[in-house]
Amino acid sequence: MHANYNHIAGQSVERLAALSDGVFAVAMTLLVLDLRTPAETAIHSERDLWNAIVLLAPRILVYLMSFLTLGIFWVGQQTQLNHFSHSDRHLTWIHLAFLFGVSLMPFSTSLMASFISYRLALLLYWANIFVLGAILFAAWRYALRVQLVKPELSAEFAAAIERRIIVAQALYALGALLCLINTYWSLGFILLVQINYALAPRINPLSRL
Amino acid sequence: MHANYNHIAGQSVERLAALSDGVFAVAMTLLVLDLRTPAETAIHSERDLWNAIVLLAPRILVYLMSFLTLGIFWVGQQTQLNHFSHSDRHLTWIHLAFLFGVSLMPFSTSLMASFISYRLALLLYWANIFVLGAILFAAWRYALRVQLVKPELSAEFAAAIERRIIVAQALYALGALLCLINTYWSLGFILLVQINYALAPRINPLSRL
Amino acid sequence: MHANYNHIAGQSVERLAALSDGVFAVAMTLLVLDLRTPAETAIHSERDLWNAIVLLAPRILVYLMSFLTLGIFWVGQQTQLNHFSHSDRHLTWIHLAFLFGVSLMPFSTSLMASFISYRLALLLYWANIFVLGAILFAAWRYALRVQLVKPELSAEFAAAIERRIIVAQALYALGALLCLINTYWSLGFILLVQINYALAPRINPLSRL
Amino acid sequence: MHANYNHIAGQSVERLAALSDGVFAVAMTLLVLDLRTPAETAIHSERDLWNAIVLLAPRILVYLMSFLTLGIFWVGQQTQLNHFSHSDRHLTWIHLAFLFGVSLMPFSTSLMASFISYRLALLLYWANIFVLGAILFAAWRYALRVQLVKPELSAEFAAAIERRIIVAQALYALGALLCLINTYWSLGFILLVQINYALAPRINPLSRL
Repeated sequence: MHANYNHIAGQSVERLAALSDGVFAVAMTLLVLDLRTPAETAIHSERDLWNAIVLLAPRILVYLMSFLTLGIFWVGQQTQLNHFSHSDRHLTWIHLAFLFGVSLMPFSTSLMASFISYRLALLLYWANIFVLGAILFAAWRYALRVQLVKPELSAEFAAAIERRIIVAQALYALGALLCLINTYWSLGFILLVQINYALAPRINPLSRL
Repeated sequence: MHANYNHIAGQSVERLAALSDGVFAVAMTLLVLDLRTPAETAIHSERDLWNAIVLLAPRILVYLMSFLTLGIFWVGQQTQLNHFSHSDRHLTWIHLAFLFGVSLMPFSTSLMASFISYRLALLLYWANIFVLGAILFAAWRYALRVQLVKPELSAEFAAAIERRIIVAQALYALGALLCLINTYWSLGFILLVQINYALAPRINPLSRL
Repeated sequence: MHANYNHIAGQSVERLAALSDGVFAVAMTLLVLDLRTPAETAIHSERDLWNAIVLLAPRILVYLMSFLTLGIFWVGQQTQLNHFSHSDRHLTWIHLAFLFGVSLMPFSTSLMASFISYRLALLLYWANIFVLGAILFAAWRYALRVQLVKPELSAEFAAAIERRIIVAQALYALGALLCLINTYWSLGFILLVQINYALAPRINPLSRL
Repeated sequence: MHANYNHIAGQSVERLAALSDGVFAVAMTLLVLDLRTPAETAIHSERDLWNAIVLLAPRILVYLMSFLTLGIFWVGQQTQLNHFSHSDRHLTWIHLAFLFGVSLMPFSTSLMASFISYRLALLLYWANIFVLGAILFAAWRYALRVQLVKPELSAEFAAAIERRIIVAQALYALGALLCLINTYWSLGFILLVQINYALAPRINPLSRL
């Protein structure tokens, strides 16, 4: 029998976690490169500088939103990886596709920040979030099917992870739909959903989902 | 009973440490991108090059200051994480907020370096330092309250960590106040405080704090 | 006898893996910096924005291709490192040369994306892939020769790793040759080979190789 | 007695190694950002592209040299960290100073590549290498003095590490002195020294040092 490269490749969850932490760390920090300092020649007083920074405010808000997105998906991916006993080449490639989506986030963010009132920019931004959720969902389903998860994982917990992705994606899709009114409604709604997931307040009606 | 995603998410201190090291590493190295080499067309002799580099000096000083800031907060965060037995989703998100502050540091630094004599730039720079300290303080308080710290940690050591943050922040705030005179006094004072924390000399009157 | 620095340097496989994950993570994420958002002044309608993004499409395709390349070589290097029991200074330096090739990938990609119809850009891009494969092959041969691999590794598996590199490189070389027709044939063929390696479908005639 | 923050801060060698790998990985990959693709408007034929890339050659050489420098110091630092049983705040700060030097390397490299015939650029480049070596030497001396190294480390090996740094720095200083003739002699000599350390050939007269 021929030994098959595919049977021995990509088995380390630790290396996958390390690569993921690296890609997330770079993506999170690169976002800020889009916050350019005002040109020195245009600033002649404290007031000029203040006005220039106020003009940066929408950009900072979009940046915060993207940091929240990346944070949410980092926690989501981490929670998955913590429950894998090992990996295989397919799971590794599903997560590499996920990281491709993560690495596109600074571009989607920059587009959104530059064209904040354009529906197309909003829909591409949402598509990026959707792709991240869809791949994470696929990764979890695949890991369950070929039994890469730790044996002590209860079916209930496995279902909680799937439910979380579906509810969140439904809310993001609803947010994206609000661009029929205008993009600010969409951004505001998505930001509220994200803050809710980051803060997870006790009185949260979604916390049981 | 419903299994709750929030009870199983974000429990790995190791992954949090790895992400943090990544964000700090990128932020520390991105700072230097602001040090642009002089335009080749403007340099015609060794003396021209020397003058161009001398002009970069204030920028290099601000850069050094920001590296010190990041170093101090990296040591501070590391010391905390070393004493956590595990994490939960709230602690993870508090530290993600901390990393958001870290990722803003290259922007604050660039602003400070470009507008070194502007009070607004100095106050925003100080605000960034303040936010980092405040979040780290909140993280520690939260970890103590819900008992995420290792059981062998003495109350005395727990108090030492809090005291350190408070004293440091008081000194930074004093430094920021000095911008009432001018921003160079502020920068000089903050730099001295930072060098003191980095070197921690034996004869340091603050070393008992 | 003199103690020799070279006998005690570079022995940690873990540090080598950590540095590699960092370099891959940065390279994967830097690729996207080349996707510049359209100039705000040139966009006056949703249609303008759509057209501007359509113009980015070839660049996004080349970017996807480079991400696949980096993913394939990351899996390949990981598979090797997983089978090393320890390292020595020579193996460390062979892998540093490999990382040098990885760090050049954003440049090769940018060149390919800017000059997509130029044979020279295609050949340099292929040369980058070839160098990565050749160094990985050399690293494996060296590790086998001086017995740095784990003792339980079968000769059959060792051969599978070599065979994989040779077959893949033969296909990439064939793809590069197709630039005699034109560069789009080359890019299409290389992309198909990469997708095949990423997906590794069951009915794949290459999967036995 | 007051618990002292300085006694509990910065004790993790693992976190220091992780931060260092991150800073090295980013610095190694950022170097390449200086290799800009030629402007598309200036290229009208394969020959134009070839000429533009040939013009990049000195820049690629300086880049390779800096990658070698970073590789040599990464191996050097790794070798030290592998022999530490634990760290303390002083050792951590000495290594943070080392990482500051590492993060300056992309700037020194860019300066050297832009002003390849200027002695000042060469001397600043050499100063960066010198600072890295001096800090690494200080870190090792400090770790030996306060007994942070693993107890099984022989005095002979400890001396080998010091000797290596001194010999290498003497050679780099000699290389820098050659700029009295011209900077190309300096660069050529330093590059040869680096290649010698990377390859470490058996017949190397320095290999006993």
